[in-house]
This record gives sequence, structure tokens and C-alpha cells, in this order.
Amino acid sequence: MIIKLLPMTVDKTLSVPVYLQIANEIIFQIQRGNVRSGSQLPGSRELAEQLQVHRKTVRTAYDELVAQSWIETKPRKGVFVVPNLPEVKPRSILANQPRSAYPKRTFFEVPEDKAPPSRFTAPVRPPIRTFNDGFPDTRLAPTNLLIREYRRFANFQFTQKFLSYGPAQGSENLRFELARFLNETRGLRVTTDNILITKGSQMALYLVAQLLIVPGNTVVVGDPGFFGANDVFEQAGAQLHCVPVDARGLDLNAVEAVCRRKKIRLLYVVPHHHHPTTVTLSPERRMQLLELSVKYGFAILEDDYDYDFQYASSPVLPLASADQSGNVIYAGSFCKTIAPAIRVGFMVAPENLIEQATRLRRLIDRQGESLLEEAMAHLLKNGDITRHLRKANKIYHERRDILCRLLRENLADEIRFEVPDGGMSVWATYSGNLTSKTVSERADPLGLRVDSGENYFHQKIQSQHVRLGFASMNADELEQAVFLLAKAVKSLH
Amino acid sequence: MIIKLLPMTVDKTLSVPVYLQIANEIIFQIQRGNVRSGSQLPGSRELAEQLQVHRKTVRTAYDELVAQSWIETKPRKGVFVVPNLPEVKPRSILANQPRSAYPKRTFFEVPEDKAPPSRFTAPVRPPIRTFNDGFPDTRLAPTNLLIREYRRFANFQFTQKFLSYGPAQGSENLRFELARFLNETRGLRVTTDNILITKGSQMALYLVAQLLIVPGNTVVVGDPGFFGANDVFEQAGAQLHCVPVDARGLDLNAVEAVCRRKKIRLLYVVPHHHHPTTVTLSPERRMQLLELSVKYGFAILEDDYDYDFQYASSPVLPLASADQSGNVIYAGSFCKTIAPAIRVGFMVAPENLIEQATRLRRLIDRQGESLLEEAMAHLLKNGDITRHLRKANKIYHERRDILCRLLRENLADEIRFEVPDGGMSVWATYSGNLTSKTVSERADPLGLRVDSGENYFHQKIQSQHVRLGFASMNADELEQAVFLLAKAVKSLH
Repeated sequence: MIIKLLPMTVDKTLSVPVYLQIANEIIFQIQRGNVRSGSQLPGSRELAEQLQVHRKTVRTAYDELVAQSWIETKPRKGVFVVPNLPEVKPRSILANQPRSAYPKRTFFEVPEDKAPPSRFTAPVRPPIRTFNDGFPDTRLAPTNLLIREYRRFANFQFTQKFLSYGPAQGSENLRFELARFLNETRGLRVTTDNILITKGSQMALYLVAQLLIVPGNTVVVGDPGFFGANDVFEQAGAQLHCVPVDARGLDLNAVEAVCRRKKIRLLYVVPHHHHPTTVTLSPERRMQLLELSVKYGFAILEDDYDYDFQYASSPVLPLASADQSGNVIYAGSFCKTIAPAIRVGFMVAPENLIEQATRLRRLIDRQGESLLEEAMAHLLKNGDITRHLRKANKIYHERRDILCRLLRENLADEIRFEVPDGGMSVWATYSGNLTSKTVSERADPLGLRVDSGENYFHQKIQSQHVRLGFASMNADELEQAVFLLAKAVKSLH
Repeated sequence: MIIKLLPMTVDKTLSVPVYLQIANEIIFQIQRGNVRSGSQLPGSRELAEQLQVHRKTVRTAYDELVAQSWIETKPRKGVFVVPNLPEVKPRSILANQPRSAYPKRTFFEVPEDKAPPSRFTAPVRPPIRTFNDGFPDTRLAPTNLLIREYRRFANFQFTQKFLSYGPAQGSENLRFELARFLNETRGLRVTTDNILITKGSQMALYLVAQLLIVPGNTVVVGDPGFFGANDVFEQAGAQLHCVPVDARGLDLNAVEAVCRRKKIRLLYVVPHHHHPTTVTLSPERRMQLLELSVKYGFAILEDDYDYDFQYASSPVLPLASADQSGNVIYAGSFCKTIAPAIRVGFMVAPENLIEQATRLRRLIDRQGESLLEEAMAHLLKNGDITRHLRKANKIYHERRDILCRLLRENLADEIRFEVPDGGMSVWATYSGNLTSKTVSERADPLGLRVDSGENYFHQKIQSQHVRLGFASMNADELEQAVFLLAKAVKSLH
């Protein structure tokens, strides 16, 4: 008896040829158990009529199924599903759903505690203005320079050598230019062997955490601190030990007190502009921190993500530039220099750590984007990055001053802050009984997005602090944003 | 008493201003203990003469040091290092190395067993020809199309929305186009929620391993198999259980035998062209594998990295297209379609797994390259990828035939092989007592790089097998490569 196929349709507008659509549909019906092993399929004429296609199309579909070993033709008998297929019982899990339903959930168990969910939710409707966490203005991003570099890849010979698999450690050219750049701007006497090119500084944090932390190890972080780093350490199994942060940065007496009580594996520090408070670690604490790391044998992960943005004086050199012992791992990024979506960062460390980090990176994603890395190398080499930084610095400096002036003029009684030396945000504190959460909630319907302050402290306390990113708004936009903030704040009084 | 600074030099050709070089050098001398806390620095005139710079430059340097809190000026007395710096003892680790030496090794301990070293070493000198592992010909890469897409980013308004932080799950547009592409070409009825954009399929393997494997879990792999996947599973703590691979793919009786004895967490399979042997998993084994995964509750990781390259008939649809239970995780990539250095891959799975994988991905590197992902979305949308695949398929088909003919003509007695249905390499076996290693060693001085066969089997045995990648050589190059291979092989007889 010839089996009846379930109804099927073909769609001539698809890029998949019609014969293949027919063949695939029959395979699905076999796999779902609608068509049993050994049963006879309709003749090509019959099926062609049913589907309103040419008979030759059905024959080609059947040829395809023969080639794939799903069916066989018996001379003078017809076309049959091969006999040796495992029987799919009609009640089997494989058969009891319509084909269109892709499974909603995995049948196997997926743990839900391997990584925390995102801390942020997208706004319901796009706000008029946003005080972000301190992001650069993407309108200033030198996209034109990047496109110019990509045009160079039209040179076929030149581009060939960057198209196959490349070094997991990152582009040789980029590491060379970066070593020079880091030496000149940050006093890091490094060679290409001390550098691993990463996807943003985020990957540097991840690699360090995975390599150095054994579950249960103690990692010291500032509180308030950068949740993005804390999440990475905790995911690797670290016990976080939080120390206070004051106007001169991490409280090192608190750090030493921890060291005396237990073994510390790693200390995370943003010496330049501590996230979120924007304070700079003072010179004497820098030296003290290096001494402590030698005395107690812990690694220092120095996250210097916005070193390049300085308004007060020249930047204090990184800890890594003074490290003679090999205790400092230095992480940085071009995500703030060019744009957040341009994911080029770097990790600087003694060779033995770079070697192990490169091994792990190879397992994670094999290598970075070679073309992008070459483009960045060229932009560094011909001074484009330096020129762009100088220009952006001037603009952000002005914007910082504008925001600080506007806050003083409009919210003198409601918000306290210190003018930050650099970076892209002002760390502010609401007065009285205003909380970050209530201000944020009040600002939202006015069209202003301002942080609700839940992620600054490790214990998710109700805080009165807020980080006001100013870099991505021009003068008019800052004025509008502060106007809306003032409106929200004053409506709470 | 005025302290004597160690000799220093300035370099006017650097991009760092001279005053800053002076300031930085003094900071280094303080940090190294050469200049003690509280000591008096030379006057600006004296230091200017010594360094042969303008006196104003030294004054600016001192202003900088005051601003950074390293020194202070006492009226009518001079310039002094601030008194409160921690004392650096001359024998301290911080002091006993010249500044130019960046630390050779970390002071803290770095484990060396977190990830294996690379399996491959670069050749001493560039070979004339290479039988690689099965890489595409980068000379065919549609770089011009990619550059065309990057030119579109010159449209300022258009590009803005892709320059800030984007979704960790990957570009919405790319997931949309990819869902359509996967539906049309592979019969996967997925939506954008079932897709995570990764950096190559490598990152999909890493994410799955990290999410699903608890140290000690059993993962089933084929032997011979793909070392790149085995390394990732072992790094996550898996116990590998190897099952044989025959002409129809993974031996599923062996798989079921394991299932009966112990709990399997994950099975890794390349059903399309098994790496390294290029065999296709037969239809009945596909169905059997899905049934086994339901019966024993393990996850299937289907690596379909070269689905798009087919010469015999149309490709057998992926396991994922027949999975009704939610047991199949599907991984693919455009690294073979465009070029290995273009790192865009994808992971397809039920939503609950995609959600957890996205969380972990956010910790690793936050997100992919938005511009590249948008470019890929557009190339998929306007059919450029499909057109390129059709063209490349035709060329690689020819090259496969050329290699097989050349091997038959020149090495009929020395090499056995089956013509592969698709993919980019021929799996071959040397006859007699030839080993892959001896042939490789003999070929090397002739200018031919051919794999030494140590990575195909999980136990690094001396093998007689070799994977001969043909896709990246044209007819002349293949002829030359086989000529050199024949020369190497025959010299061993």
C-alpha cells in the first residue's frame, strides 16, 4: 500500500530549490515517524499533481533522497523508504510536535547560576536624555578613519596575509605599535611579548579571573566598586572582600588588615579614576600598594580603562610602570577612545602570564578580528589615535565643566559632588532623604534616564549616590538633562 | 642638602612632551627609592643646564609633580619630595632592578595547566606548498563585499546606532537574517531568540562546555576526532569517552554501551563531515542518535562548521532540524564562508540555553563587533553570501576532483582514500609502514608542509592517516603539492 504523505506546500520564492524543499519535507515526515521505514511513497506523477509542480521536479527530489540514503527505488515496483531506519513510535518525543515548533526548552538541564543576568534593562521607550555610566560620545568616534583603514584592505596582496588564522595573542603589528604607545604615554617598558590583544578590557578581566582564581580564593575590591569586575571574579568562584574607598582611593590600611588575617590572591584596582567614585589613587598609596603586594604575595589587576581622559594635570603614571616585582597586570582598552562597539582591548603582564592567558584565549574564541587589529595598528602608528584623543579630551573637559556649572546653578542644595580630574562622569550624592532610586523613577516619565544607584555597592543597598556621565552630551543636551534632573529632584521635595 | 638625581636623558622626538618625560623620570626615581621622601630636588636652573633644556620646561615638570602630589615647593627654600611617602629601602624588590627591565616573570604564581598549549608550531621557513587542515582559499574571500559594507558606515546617522554598547546576544539584524538563512538552507525553524552570535564556532563550543560541564562529567566524542573541541571539553573538566568512527560516522552501539554504564552529559558530533575523517553520519544513525539522547537525557552538540560545502548531493539536513525534544545545540560559522579571520559564528538552541549562554558571554567579552555583525547581516540579506557560496562550492568541487585524480595518478600504491562528499579536505591513509610523521619530516625540507598526524586520535598515537586540505590551492598548486608529496613518500620506500 502506498503511504499518504502529510499535506505539504512548496514556496517558489525561496532561495532553496523546490525539489530540495520536497525532499526535505519528506525527510521530516520520516524523522517524525509519519512515514515509516519500508513504506512506499507516491509515484512522481501523483505527487507532482498534488503539489502542482513539474514531474521532473519530484523525480529530482527522489534522486536526492536516494543519494542521501533515505529512500530506494525498486524496478517496476516504485519508491520505498529504506528498511533499516530505527522505528519512531508515534508517541515518541520526536514525533508528537508539529514540525514548525522549535523546542521551547532544552530537554537536558541547564544550570542558571553560571553567570548573573545583566544588571540593566532597556528603557520602555527611548528617553530624551540619558546620564549614562560614562560612555564616550559616539558622534565623535573617528569612524571615517576606521573606514579609511578598511579601504586599504581593497589591496588584495596586502590583505591576504591577514585573512587566514592569525596569532591568538593578537596582531604582531598592533602589539608592536601598542608597546610603543604604552611606553610613550604610560612609561611601561614593555615589548610585544608582554601584550595580549583582547576584546575590550572585559576579556582581560575574564582571562585573569579564570587563570588565577581557584574557587574560594579571596579577591579584594573597593566598595563602592565596579560591578562588572565583581561579577567576573564571583563567576570564577572568588570570595570578594570589600574595602572602603575614600578621597584618595582604596583604603590600604583595610587591605593590610585583610592580608594579616588571610591569604589574598588578587586585588582589583582602578587607580586612575576609581569606578564609580572617580577618585585617583594617591601617590603614597600607589607605592604602599606595590609594597603590600610584594610583602603578602598577591597579584594586582590594574584596570586603567580611562587613562587617556585627563583634565586636571597630566595623568599619574600607572602602577604597572613602577612595578619591579612582577605583581601588576595591566588592562586597558580602546573602547572609550574610539567607540564602545569597537572591541579592542589589551592585557599587559610578564611573559609567563601572557603565555597562559593566550592559551586560554585560544580555547575561548581562537583569536581576535585580524582586520580590525591591523586597522588599529595603523591608526596608532600614524598618530591618528593620539590626535583624536587630544581633540576628544578638549571636548570632554569642556563638557565636564559645563555639567559641574549646571549642577551648581540648578541643584546646589540637592546634589553634592567633587569635580573629577578626568574620566567621563561626575560622582554625585543627593541631599536630604532623596535616594537614587526615587529620583530615577521620577525622572523616567519626564524622559530622563538616570541611574537608580543599585549597582555601586556590593551589598545592593539603597544609595544616595549617582554617576552622571557627561561625555556623550553636548552643551545643549547637558542643559536639557540637568533641567529634567532638577525637575525630577525638586518634585520630590 | 640637595639630592643628586640619577643621570637622565630626554628625547625630543617622542610624542610625550619633554616636561612630562622629566616629571616621569623623577617619579620613577622616587618610586625606586633613589630619591627619598622629604629630600630636596635641584633648582630648575641647575637641572635645565644638566638636561640642556629650557628652564621653563623644568619648571613645568615641577608644576606637574606638585599637581600630582609628588613634590612641594617651600617659599625661599626650594623644591622637596613630599614627606609622607612610604620609605623604599634600597634593598627592596622595588628598587634593585634598573627601570628599563620590565619584570620577566610574575612574582605571584601562575598555574600552567589551565589550558593546553597550541598544537601547532609555525614552520621554520615558509613552505612552498601546504596541505592545511581544510581551510578556505582566502584569495576567494569576498573582501570587496566586506569593504563595500564598511563604506556604508560612512553614513553618519546610520552608523551611530551601532557604535555604543550593543546586545551581548549579537546584532538583532544579523540574528534576523540568520534565522531566515538557517530556515531556508537547513530547515531550522528558529527565531532570533534561538540564536547567539559568537566569535567563530569556537566560542559556541567554549560557552556550551562552560555552561554544561561540571568537572568529572562524561563527554562522548569520536576517535579520531576534533582536538579543538576535545581541548575545550577537557579544560572545562570533562572526562572524555571516545567512541569509534566508521564509514557511517560515530558508532552508536558504542555510544549506547557507554550510556548503559554511566551518565553522559554531552555528546559532540560533526555529522556533516566528521573531523578529521570527512564521513557523513548516516540517516539511520541520525535518528538513532536523537532517540538515544532522549532515552538517556544527554545534550548533543552538533558542530556543522562546513555544512555549506557540498559536492555529491544536497547536504543532509542537520540533526537540529529534526530535534523535537530540545536536545540539540547547533554551532556554525562564517569563518569558512568568508575567511578564517572574519570571526562570526553562531550557536542555535532553545531559548533557556541561549539566555544562559548570553549571560556568560557578557562576562567574557561583553559583545561582538557590531559593525562586522551589521555588515554580515546585510551580506546575508541581499544574497551575497549565497552567491559567494555557490561560486566557492563550484571551485572547491573542482579542486577536490583534481586532488583525487592527482593522488590516484601519482600515489596509487602509497595512499588510500575515499572521495569526500563535501568539505575542504581528503582523509587519506599511507600504505605499508609509512607513518604520517616520517612523511611530514621528509616533506619539510622539500618545501611541503603536510600534517604529521599526531592530533587526530585522542591518544597521541603514531598514525598513518593524514588530512589533506585541498580548498586553498588552485590546480597548479595542487599539482606541485602532490609532486612534492610523491617525492617525499617515494624517497621513503
